[in-house]
Amino acid sequence: MAVCITDITRPNPETVAKYQGAEAATVHEAQGRKGLLAHYMRPIYRPASIAGPAVTCEVSPGDNWMIHVAVEQCQPGDILVVKPTSDCIDGYFGDLLATSLQARGVKGLIIDGGVRDTATLTKMGFPVWSKAVFGQGTVKETIANVNTPITCAGAYIRPGDIIVADDDGVVVVQQEEADSVHEKVLSRVANEEDKRVRLASGELGLDIYNMRQRLADKGLRYVKQGEEA
Amino acid sequence: MAVCITDITRPNPETVAKYQGAEAATVHEAQGRKGLLAHYMRPIYRPASIAGPAVTCEVSPGDNWMIHVAVEQCQPGDILVVKPTSDCIDGYFGDLLATSLQARGVKGLIIDGGVRDTATLTKMGFPVWSKAVFGQGTVKETIANVNTPITCAGAYIRPGDIIVADDDGVVVVQQEEADSVHEKVLSRVANEEDKRVRLASGELGLDIYNMRQRLADKGLRYVKQGEEA
Amino acid sequence: MAVCITDITRPNPETVAKYQGAEAATVHEAQGRKGLLAHYMRPIYRPASIAGPAVTCEVSPGDNWMIHVAVEQCQPGDILVVKPTSDCIDGYFGDLLATSLQARGVKGLIIDGGVRDTATLTKMGFPVWSKAVFGQGTVKETIANVNTPITCAGAYIRPGDIIVADDDGVVVVQQEEADSVHEKVLSRVANEEDKRVRLASGELGLDIYNMRQRLADKGLRYVKQGEEA
Amino acid sequence: MAVCITDITRPNPETVAKYQGAEAATVHEAQGRKGLLAHYMRPIYRPASIAGPAVTCEVSPGDNWMIHVAVEQCQPGDILVVKPTSDCIDGYFGDLLATSLQARGVKGLIIDGGVRDTATLTKMGFPVWSKAVFGQGTVKETIANVNTPITCAGAYIRPGDIIVADDDGVVVVQQEEADSVHEKVLSRVANEEDKRVRLASGELGLDIYNMRQRLADKGLRYVKQGEEA
Amino acid sequence: MAVCITDITRPNPETVAKYQGAEAATVHEAQGRKGLLAHYMRPIYRPASIAGPAVTCEVSPGDNWMIHVAVEQCQPGDILVVKPTSDCIDGYFGDLLATSLQARGVKGLIIDGGVRDTATLTKMGFPVWSKAVFGQGTVKETIANVNTPITCAGAYIRPGDIIVADDDGVVVVQQEEADSVHEKVLSRVANEEDKRVRLASGELGLDIYNMRQRLADKGLRYVKQGEEA
Amino acid sequence: MAVCITDITRPNPETVAKYQGAEAATVHEAQGRKGLLAHYMRPIYRPASIAGPAVTCEVSPGDNWMIHVAVEQCQPGDILVVKPTSDCIDGYFGDLLATSLQARGVKGLIIDGGVRDTATLTKMGFPVWSKAVFGQGTVKETIANVNTPITCAGAYIRPGDIIVADDDGVVVVQQEEADSVHEKVLSRVANEEDKRVRLASGELGLDIYNMRQRLADKGLRYVKQGEEA
Repeated sequence: MAVCITDITRPNPETVAKYQGAEAATVHEAQGRKGLLAHYMRPIYRPASIAGPAVTCEVSPGDNWMIHVAVEQCQPGDILVVKPTSDCIDGYFGDLLATSLQARGVKGLIIDGGVRDTATLTKMGFPVWSKAVFGQGTVKETIANVNTPITCAGAYIRPGDIIVADDDGVVVVQQEEADSVHEKVLSRVANEEDKRVRLASGELGLDIYNMRQRLADKGLRYVKQGEEA
Repeated sequence: MAVCITDITRPNPETVAKYQGAEAATVHEAQGRKGLLAHYMRPIYRPASIAGPAVTCEVSPGDNWMIHVAVEQCQPGDILVVKPTSDCIDGYFGDLLATSLQARGVKGLIIDGGVRDTATLTKMGFPVWSKAVFGQGTVKETIANVNTPITCAGAYIRPGDIIVADDDGVVVVQQEEADSVHEKVLSRVANEEDKRVRLASGELGLDIYNMRQRLADKGLRYVKQGEEA
Repeated sequence: MAVCITDITRPNPETVAKYQGAEAATVHEAQGRKGLLAHYMRPIYRPASIAGPAVTCEVSPGDNWMIHVAVEQCQPGDILVVKPTSDCIDGYFGDLLATSLQARGVKGLIIDGGVRDTATLTKMGFPVWSKAVFGQGTVKETIANVNTPITCAGAYIRPGDIIVADDDGVVVVQQEEADSVHEKVLSRVANEEDKRVRLASGELGLDIYNMRQRLADKGLRYVKQGEEA
Repeated sequence: MAVCITDITRPNPETVAKYQGAEAATVHEAQGRKGLLAHYMRPIYRPASIAGPAVTCEVSPGDNWMIHVAVEQCQPGDILVVKPTSDCIDGYFGDLLATSLQARGVKGLIIDGGVRDTATLTKMGFPVWSKAVFGQGTVKETIANVNTPITCAGAYIRPGDIIVADDDGVVVVQQEEADSVHEKVLSRVANEEDKRVRLASGELGLDIYNMRQRLADKGLRYVKQGEEA
Repeated sequence: MAVCITDITRPNPETVAKYQGAEAATVHEAQGRKGLLAHYMRPIYRPASIAGPAVTCEVSPGDNWMIHVAVEQCQPGDILVVKPTSDCIDGYFGDLLATSLQARGVKGLIIDGGVRDTATLTKMGFPVWSKAVFGQGTVKETIANVNTPITCAGAYIRPGDIIVADDDGVVVVQQEEADSVHEKVLSRVANEEDKRVRLASGELGLDIYNMRQRLADKGLRYVKQGEEA
Repeated sequence: MAVCITDITRPNPETVAKYQGAEAATVHEAQGRKGLLAHYMRPIYRPASIAGPAVTCEVSPGDNWMIHVAVEQCQPGDILVVKPTSDCIDGYFGDLLATSLQARGVKGLIIDGGVRDTATLTKMGFPVWSKAVFGQGTVKETIANVNTPITCAGAYIRPGDIIVADDDGVVVVQQEEADSVHEKVLSRVANEEDKRVRLASGELGLDIYNMRQRLADKGLRYVKQGEEA
């Protein structure tokens, strides 16, 4: 009893294009501090930065069969997102599957499990964010869903949602919010650039953000040693 | 009450030579998905790849004395495998011991504990796979066994068994199975090369491995959105 | 109810200068195997090596407000040490705060929590030792202490104590012991250099350190296979 | 920018009533092995067993303010489900909040964080499933959402979905599937009862489930010691 | 190079007496949310509740020798606090040491490591808060300090500081603050009792604590489903 | 490619009988501090204490099929020991399998994975030591070995070796050493009883074990506060 959804809706290419090079942390802030995957999702090499629509794939523990099904559903620019139906860090994915995905123009893999052949994947320039690096092989015995909504590393991801991944981790943007979130990203980046210049010149965040009065109101006292009490 | 076995049997050099450059994940698959050490065994630098016979060494928690005993038992081409008798990630091993091992022609260290002086070890080109990097020093007060069978990071390892380690982790091959396993490694590699070419050309694993009928038999249904139920 | 101490005593600059380039593991050994922070404190890039006086800063979980307060207390050569008042690996610190610290001549950050913008921090050459890399944003709502003694990653650190951090981790030296500890560091390094030469020439630690008799006294027996019992 | 939804739809009381006493593992199996929260969600006392509609509540790390908001939204028979917006095991919930919930007829708490006052909660008979027991206090400074969909311990939970919790853990049933899943639960329980009687009489699962031929087909060989190869 | 301090100053007995039966979480709150040991410090049986002055004891990893030294320094009413100098969860403590401590009137043990013989300790009514239960034995080879300040499970503890431990965990109160903190404990308990009565009668925390206006000021909006945006 | 060994050699019943009621920690000490399984192996209820010969069983991650094969190999008094071929804490075992094992006279289960139906297992009085309690269901698709040597929770276990489990954890005794180890257990217990009486009377371990001189030789100094340096 499992399904593979074949006609998922992707965001329009212009929207996806805007997210290339965006920072995961900034996107996460811009959409109200939501959508971040767990901190244990780490890139196998650095630096690495990708953005694209999610193709989602469940796998059974120790069984990578469904990844083969998911490959066929991938289009150029997509990012494959794989979630074991229960915790398992086996090496579900290696260089053969990466070769297949790369041949289809897929940008990278997000997997809440293990990955192997990392030396080859690094040479291929196929980025993976995973919970573990582990050589443990898997079987092909049990089916599961492809392109249904999943929770991956604590985040809820639907096929077609936009994935943004970089050295800090992975964030998901809901497809229908992609344009409005990106406007906030732009505004955030512009605002940060201004702040960066002022901070680099030696100005303090305390002054730039007008924090001194509010700190005093909360009860912060500046004292000399021995005067704490 | 501890022993150091002085005359362990090593595999013949031709057998060991065949494993140079072999991938840990492939070896693990070839021998029936056994012999892999736990995923937390990570190299201190990448890329790194070694293969050789194991000299095994127990250490007490927080005590690296027996590593000095084990060094003397090492021969050129060996790999030292160290196992604390209970969990402890102290920095049992640093650049002085590495200097000593390197002088003896030892290829690297596998330790189910901590390692230190990693900047120097990296410069020396002495690879280590460990559970942790930790500067914590150790004492030299308690004896333990050298060259007896051990369980290290979940794998059973006897002196003279062949260790293969790379960026994906560490695997052990039983000495008496080393030749037959290597034949399977070769056959696997050849088979993978063929698959890689086909996958790179865009052919799908679903077709190469004839999975479609079996997936259907298991109950996988391809549907359009809204038709899942 | 929180304080910011404004006039902490720093060690004299000559003392601090002596620690530049010192190895964390060696310093830890030299002062009697104390002062090491937990092994999970890892640098965001390698190699990295800094030493300097600590400015200490508590933060509430998920709240980085007090880092702004701490920045103002930092002087050239300082190292900022941040401790959440309860476990939290949110990304308290990113490139804007690093820009501000770098403008003030601060050498790096030690944080028992998460850090973000690691790609940019790496480009900037601003080293950070942290418990995690995580893009998760924080708020600015709750005050806490700056420049009071803290426990950070299991070590007790007072403002003005000397922090030494490298690829192996982080160690703290009490300010009043800084000179005497450094003498022991020098003596240790000299002693190690002598040992390194002898070990590199093939001499064994067993002989250099006169271990053979003591091992025998403890009960170690050298035996051939089959003679263990 | 946070909302509290005030008019969530709950399943009808007859549906909820059917789940009283149901086992979490059985419900999880019955709905196709989905909906289970992570294994670290443990009850503070055993045995404990509850079922009811979820009121969902986000909290900021180290901040329990929104639980007070959520309490008002609870009705008799409800189960409060709390999720920190980033990982934090502080003691968000204690006997005062339990007193308030118990006064409103709430059956228990599911929290992907910490709980305190466990001795008193045990005496009160107010069950809690949590990630940790921890006395760490929290603040009341930051708002978050109440009664919006959340991911809690890896599961996606919408307000009004049915929570079933017992000594094995916690499972969520989607509100719209509650009746159909319960039929499968009943059928499973009946089927298990039959199996239990046969197994208790000494009959083997191998025979009851007709496994022998399929095992042989997969390649299982029954051999005597020494005949493995 | 290790010392055993023989004349530690203990708080006066009246002060200690006041803490009997106090709750760890309440004490922690009363002193400004500090002094709590890490959440992983769990009692071996429940319920359990003790309070008394700390005798502190360092042990080397896998070595319980110094506990014997510490026993002699214990007086009736004391609590022994043991800290391995690096992480190790071996079973440092069992029923023989408990018999010895119980004979001296010691109330219990706090150990940032492992404990064994838990069935017997439970029968004896000797409470232990530990990081782990583990049968692993230890040696007696290496000395360490007794009655010097330690960091234990993340908290800084000096001999003579007051330890309060119950089902929620362990907190330390600095000896010189013991009386003033206890006054705050009393005031907190009185205040909580009043709140408990009101909450039990159905009054809401939102009203008792006047939270509604402040929540609105922060931006919380009460909406009906479908009106979130 | 998997085997089920059908004719394992068990220790003679008199030997097994001697271990009933033995403590895991004591057995572990008596055989030279070896054979202990990892500390995370915890009983689902306490107190619990069993001893008997191991029937060993591998399972694939998320697949409990082979437990059914192993059940048939169990005889009265046996203990079933289950090891996933890679880390997985799914609930491989529940009340139906326990009913079957109990019908065959099996004493309990050791599983380096998860267990479910713990409320029922507790009522049945069928003890289980596991890595986790988790309701997650499993499939029956992949074969693995029964009654071959395994490493389970870090210990090497062969079928017919004696398992001893109690509230402190699990230890394995090699079948051929079972009688000699038990003599050491008896001698240890007798020795401990003598010590317990002396310790209970107030005598110190320092004197009973003659530790004072050796501590002084190692450098321990007894000092008054302020005289540490």
